[in-house]
Amino acid sequence: MSAIDIRWARETDIAAIVAMLADDPLGQAREDAGLPLSQAYLDAFAAIDGDPNQFLAVMTDGDDVIGTLQITFIAGLSLRGGRRGLIEAVRVAAWRRGEGLGQRLFEWAIDKCRERGCRVVQLTTNKSRTDAHRFYERLGFKASHIGYKLEL
Amino acid sequence: MSAIDIRWARETDIAAIVAMLADDPLGQAREDAGLPLSQAYLDAFAAIDGDPNQFLAVMTDGDDVIGTLQITFIAGLSLRGGRRGLIEAVRVAAWRRGEGLGQRLFEWAIDKCRERGCRVVQLTTNKSRTDAHRFYERLGFKASHIGYKLEL
Repeated sequence: MSAIDIRWARETDIAAIVAMLADDPLGQAREDAGLPLSQAYLDAFAAIDGDPNQFLAVMTDGDDVIGTLQITFIAGLSLRGGRRGLIEAVRVAAWRRGEGLGQRLFEWAIDKCRERGCRVVQLTTNKSRTDAHRFYERLGFKASHIGYKLEL
Repeated sequence: MSAIDIRWARETDIAAIVAMLADDPLGQAREDAGLPLSQAYLDAFAAIDGDPNQFLAVMTDGDDVIGTLQITFIAGLSLRGGRRGLIEAVRVAAWRRGEGLGQRLFEWAIDKCRERGCRVVQLTTNKSRTDAHRFYERLGFKASHIGYKLEL
């Protein structure tokens, strides 16, 4: 019997989430998963947790945090006032890949977007993440856009 | 002397913003700028206006609304807890293009993202908007990502 669960993240999950963000070809240059965690991570969690339109999710197996993603609900005039669900910071723990957990996590997230009345779920993924491209296309996402970033 | 100004949108700007969203090869199929405006647009404006992390901007010239964009500030654990500024729904009125107004509006928006401590400004643009691609690249944005959308 699987003990896998998906729920909103708590402060005690932050270190495990940052470890997953860092364990990645792009993330390893950007993150610092060393303990004690940088206060910036704790402050960012508090900001997410205090924002009624932001939700950080974790997938757990017993006491292990094995996946994460973040959903931001965005009201907008375009799409006839349609709400969007933006998904960021998606990870499945390296030792648990290939089990379909990412798909399960994403289907849960898409359901949350439906529950909030979103017209669109959107995300961007680095051009170098070719496995991710196939994953999103299998889930029905269309690669209709270019994602631009400007570092400040 | 130019009377051009950029400010946060008010309820009285909604019809002009929706008219710009609709006056566009992609927008004309998606929006309904007919008056009286659909209640969904008014509800979406109220949701944006009530969200401390969402800002809808207009560029005005006297009484005319001649440009718009929306900024969403997103806290996140990734990027060492770095905040992102997401820009959506960018338009300059058709009769005022070619005057550099889009650049002026964008530089203002990027300044707002800096003031809020964003590490990154990000946006997606449809692959068919080739003029927009050149515009963002001139502003220093890097086309590093693919933008995926799933319609619900």
